[in-house]
Amino acid sequence: MEEIVLNSGDTAWVLASTALVLLMTPGLAFFYGGMVRTKSVLNMMMMSMVTIGIVSVLWVIYGFELAFGYKANSPWYGNISFSGLGGVVNDFTNNGGVYPIPVLVFAAFQLMFAIITPALISGAIADRTKFTAWAIFVAIWSTLVYFPVAHWVFAFGNKVGDTITGAGYLASRGVQDFAGGTAVHINAGAAGLALAIVIGKRVGWRKESMRPHSLPLVMLGAGLLWFGWFGFNAGSSLAANGTAALALINTQVAAAAAVLGWLLVEKVRNGHATSLGAASGAVAGLVAITPACAFVAPWAAVVIGLLAGAICALSVGIKYKLGFDDSLDVVAVHLIGGIWGSLAIGLFGSSAVNSLSLDGIFYGGGTALLGKQALGVGLVFAYSFIATLIIGYAIEKTIGFRVKKDAEVEGIDLNEHAETAYEMTSSSRGGSLL
Amino acid sequence: MEEIVLNSGDTAWVLASTALVLLMTPGLAFFYGGMVRTKSVLNMMMMSMVTIGIVSVLWVIYGFELAFGYKANSPWYGNISFSGLGGVVNDFTNNGGVYPIPVLVFAAFQLMFAIITPALISGAIADRTKFTAWAIFVAIWSTLVYFPVAHWVFAFGNKVGDTITGAGYLASRGVQDFAGGTAVHINAGAAGLALAIVIGKRVGWRKESMRPHSLPLVMLGAGLLWFGWFGFNAGSSLAANGTAALALINTQVAAAAAVLGWLLVEKVRNGHATSLGAASGAVAGLVAITPACAFVAPWAAVVIGLLAGAICALSVGIKYKLGFDDSLDVVAVHLIGGIWGSLAIGLFGSSAVNSLSLDGIFYGGGTALLGKQALGVGLVFAYSFIATLIIGYAIEKTIGFRVKKDAEVEGIDLNEHAETAYEMTSSSRGGSLL
Amino acid sequence: MEEIVLNSGDTAWVLASTALVLLMTPGLAFFYGGMVRTKSVLNMMMMSMVTIGIVSVLWVIYGFELAFGYKANSPWYGNISFSGLGGVVNDFTNNGGVYPIPVLVFAAFQLMFAIITPALISGAIADRTKFTAWAIFVAIWSTLVYFPVAHWVFAFGNKVGDTITGAGYLASRGVQDFAGGTAVHINAGAAGLALAIVIGKRVGWRKESMRPHSLPLVMLGAGLLWFGWFGFNAGSSLAANGTAALALINTQVAAAAAVLGWLLVEKVRNGHATSLGAASGAVAGLVAITPACAFVAPWAAVVIGLLAGAICALSVGIKYKLGFDDSLDVVAVHLIGGIWGSLAIGLFGSSAVNSLSLDGIFYGGGTALLGKQALGVGLVFAYSFIATLIIGYAIEKTIGFRVKKDAEVEGIDLNEHAETAYEMTSSSRGGSLL
Repeated sequence: MEEIVLNSGDTAWVLASTALVLLMTPGLAFFYGGMVRTKSVLNMMMMSMVTIGIVSVLWVIYGFELAFGYKANSPWYGNISFSGLGGVVNDFTNNGGVYPIPVLVFAAFQLMFAIITPALISGAIADRTKFTAWAIFVAIWSTLVYFPVAHWVFAFGNKVGDTITGAGYLASRGVQDFAGGTAVHINAGAAGLALAIVIGKRVGWRKESMRPHSLPLVMLGAGLLWFGWFGFNAGSSLAANGTAALALINTQVAAAAAVLGWLLVEKVRNGHATSLGAASGAVAGLVAITPACAFVAPWAAVVIGLLAGAICALSVGIKYKLGFDDSLDVVAVHLIGGIWGSLAIGLFGSSAVNSLSLDGIFYGGGTALLGKQALGVGLVFAYSFIATLIIGYAIEKTIGFRVKKDAEVEGIDLNEHAETAYEMTSSSRGGSLL
Repeated sequence: MEEIVLNSGDTAWVLASTALVLLMTPGLAFFYGGMVRTKSVLNMMMMSMVTIGIVSVLWVIYGFELAFGYKANSPWYGNISFSGLGGVVNDFTNNGGVYPIPVLVFAAFQLMFAIITPALISGAIADRTKFTAWAIFVAIWSTLVYFPVAHWVFAFGNKVGDTITGAGYLASRGVQDFAGGTAVHINAGAAGLALAIVIGKRVGWRKESMRPHSLPLVMLGAGLLWFGWFGFNAGSSLAANGTAALALINTQVAAAAAVLGWLLVEKVRNGHATSLGAASGAVAGLVAITPACAFVAPWAAVVIGLLAGAICALSVGIKYKLGFDDSLDVVAVHLIGGIWGSLAIGLFGSSAVNSLSLDGIFYGGGTALLGKQALGVGLVFAYSFIATLIIGYAIEKTIGFRVKKDAEVEGIDLNEHAETAYEMTSSSRGGSLL
Repeated sequence: MEEIVLNSGDTAWVLASTALVLLMTPGLAFFYGGMVRTKSVLNMMMMSMVTIGIVSVLWVIYGFELAFGYKANSPWYGNISFSGLGGVVNDFTNNGGVYPIPVLVFAAFQLMFAIITPALISGAIADRTKFTAWAIFVAIWSTLVYFPVAHWVFAFGNKVGDTITGAGYLASRGVQDFAGGTAVHINAGAAGLALAIVIGKRVGWRKESMRPHSLPLVMLGAGLLWFGWFGFNAGSSLAANGTAALALINTQVAAAAAVLGWLLVEKVRNGHATSLGAASGAVAGLVAITPACAFVAPWAAVVIGLLAGAICALSVGIKYKLGFDDSLDVVAVHLIGGIWGSLAIGLFGSSAVNSLSLDGIFYGGGTALLGKQALGVGLVFAYSFIATLIIGYAIEKTIGFRVKKDAEVEGIDLNEHAETAYEMTSSSRGGSLL
């Protein structure tokens, strides 16, 4: 086996990217926290915070091995091992035999994906979820859903000579997902849909105003998500090279185009372009380009983003038609956006742009790639939705998943966390308020 | 032509810097958003958000080629081409024949400069600008002003053998501007002045209180701007080397000294040092060191920063004397700060520090370098001011640039975006407010 | 002497890390600013801002030489020199003869540590400290405490042939402190304790509610601190390599485990897990892993973090027992957390993980390493506490350290800075507030 020498430039970029992706989860906490009412802000943030806590610890104990170990040689899961990352501390040059970066930085980078995926789900069940039930859900869901699905999608296996062992099912079938359209966004979106069904609608849904309590906080969240997403997408090249550069510029222009797409839909439909729409559009574009960012040309990224903004804006109404209270539109943005982006590779994928990709329909490759993509979309959606329904009902029927009605009405922050987000008092300037 | 091999360390730094510079525009949105009244916060942020959307898309379609293409071989503009970055996707090793980084990461990095420059202008016309008129302005201004001026300053041309083709006018005249004192700050400041004149004063200007509604939000903006500025300045070396290190430490110490400079002026003049002054001082120092950061020694960066803080603090009064409502002091900070920093290279520039620089007056180089710098300052100011006046009046006379008076008084957020920034409701804690 | 060639990957990572560590100080300003009452927010932030200003300028004038110069060959301080970084501008390849990064990027990186250390202290004396007295304190304390102590801990000296000159006392005694458990956290914590004693308790302490005015702002601060801490810890390897990767993943999992540790203590003790606890737990874990992050295995980082969260949560009560008003728990988090993390190396340190470390007690190394660690802890605590008491009383007895009582009650923002943090006014939406 050829010896791999550490590439400090590639390592520098993945280290920086790991930090960027960590920041996305606090960013998400602000994005979601700004969208809820004053009485639920802290609970919304705490769902993200405790997810960081739980998933990080599980990752060390068995999560990384379950997702990326290859000795079990299964397409469905990695190693079942409680090694505590012990086997990899000094294994600085082995990561599937491909990337000249320490395996621990790969483990850290992938940990951040494992964190944000369940955190994304929390937006579907705002204002009404028991904190301890959520914490238990995160531990179970990560173990039974995220870690295996990450293996299907992201585990490329270990190459020894001409033999590859331990590659995930979708990876080995040629399903293209550069940074997590399936494993992260469809996965979280399907789970959010399932949990919204399990937990039910908020008290007062569609009857009273549930407007965002702080749009600047939503904007802050969107800004930090956008910033961190460069690590998410361009870091997924695991190298500081032309692929990373392509992923980075595509991420930027798709998100930008999606802002325009969402705002145009709003302007035409309602006569106004809103800041909530701009923030949501940005995230929709970022979701959609995630799987595709290294497989398409920049002009295609603009098209994917523009359509992502428009499609997701139009998808927000689905929950009203079907009657589920996906509070912060995890389905419209992450599920629909993730499906669109994953399938779009089948349209715009170009082997001229990235030699690892097949050509999509618009590049003369026919429907072969689109078919692979549909396999990935369908399998991840079905598994995540069904598994989450089962986990969700199991929790609901045992310890209960939802706070009491009067606690929900009075405010979940006060009842679950004994805190209120803001304690503004009158200043001394002329008796004015605040 | 010698083959260029990818340098992964340089690429890693420019990738990271690109992410940092993107973050500056949301940072600016918070900096500006905190400074306006509650009724205008969202509109202020939306001017930045839509700028990100529009400029990114234009950059793919023709902007990058217009700014950095070299085949037209003009000192005034790049290529007129609608190639959609198509020609550069696989051109990972050619960037003027100088830098061993993928040309797409250079395109992404420079895109962030193209975004923030028009976004900076928005501070001059807070609270009163039609959103669609602003969007149209951004598209026209970028095309007619930013893209060409970026070519003048930042396009160093393509070297084939001993011949350089396509260098910009100011670059080829030896005007030193490391990271955008002219192309970004003077350019935006001059345009802000022009637009403030075109659009006119806010209702109630100098009669009613227009104090910042949230100084923590201003501080957040300043903090993110400072952080991102390391990418802006030190990333402009397009390499992870000693020049980047010099640019980075100079950026830090100039901003820090400018905080002190602004606060000292306030303390002496008013008896108090304010947080608005600290935030403004930081930005003033960052602006002033932008063109100079790689050409001067750290002690000179301290002097440039200290004076930038003081000069800009004293310049805030200009608008009251001359009677234009530059709402958030784009002129005092970006125009004056940019002029000071650009000229300061003529004083403190040192060939011992950077072999690409001439010596300034204090290093025995006489006035030659100062003269070049004055050329750059004067040309960019004059072109930007006049062109913006023309574009501004054209928009004003056709679709109108300003919202109706009652909409302005009632609040632009509600009237242009159908939203209010905050929807605070009483919590349940003892009936206290919020 | 062997010639050192610039490593662009290592340089890229330290450049990025420097930016990350700068961001921690604004992050701290938000973390602290959110925890105080509405009337003290700006003063809290201004203490951080002016610290950035003063320390940066001192660093250029003499701070870097005093901390890291080696020509004086003293274990207690570096060079006494006013060279203005002049001697190092062109010295891009010499940094103790070890690291292939420009010495200016090392100077910039270490500057950020010199900034945040005094800024940390400010949390102990919230709501009641004269702004100018604080500024003077920062200048004196940095000169007499931080710069020398940084020399003791972080100056590894200059190697010429087989001779090392200028190594700091603790560094040469083999005390392990990878990123500043002693020099930063114990140092700041001890100084905070001393200043809280010197300045005394707030008016109304333990009698009236002093709840955080904005927990979202606290969360924002914690999020930015966490993000920046990756630069702080993993950047301290001064290279993009396996040590950086280990430091990074340990930082993540320790902070995550500490969130769980703090929340578990709260849940058991009070029945509720709070967002203030989650934010505080994260910082406690980050503090504790700081000295240890490159010397222990990831499972040990989980244990260190979990215990850090629990220990620091339980330590918050100390101030009530002993009767000092450490307003924002600098002692419980930074002093206790720093001591625990520094001593933990003596337990969990592993030469198998890092060949530069001795084995701790749990790895069969006996108490030798623990003894060294106790030396570092004790010396830094004692020096910082005593020196800060002296500096503090000197300021108190001369210009006074505390604002007048009625200014404190009315609000320090208004009285020291002539500003209030928020100027919320009623919007036009149906007469609702804000």
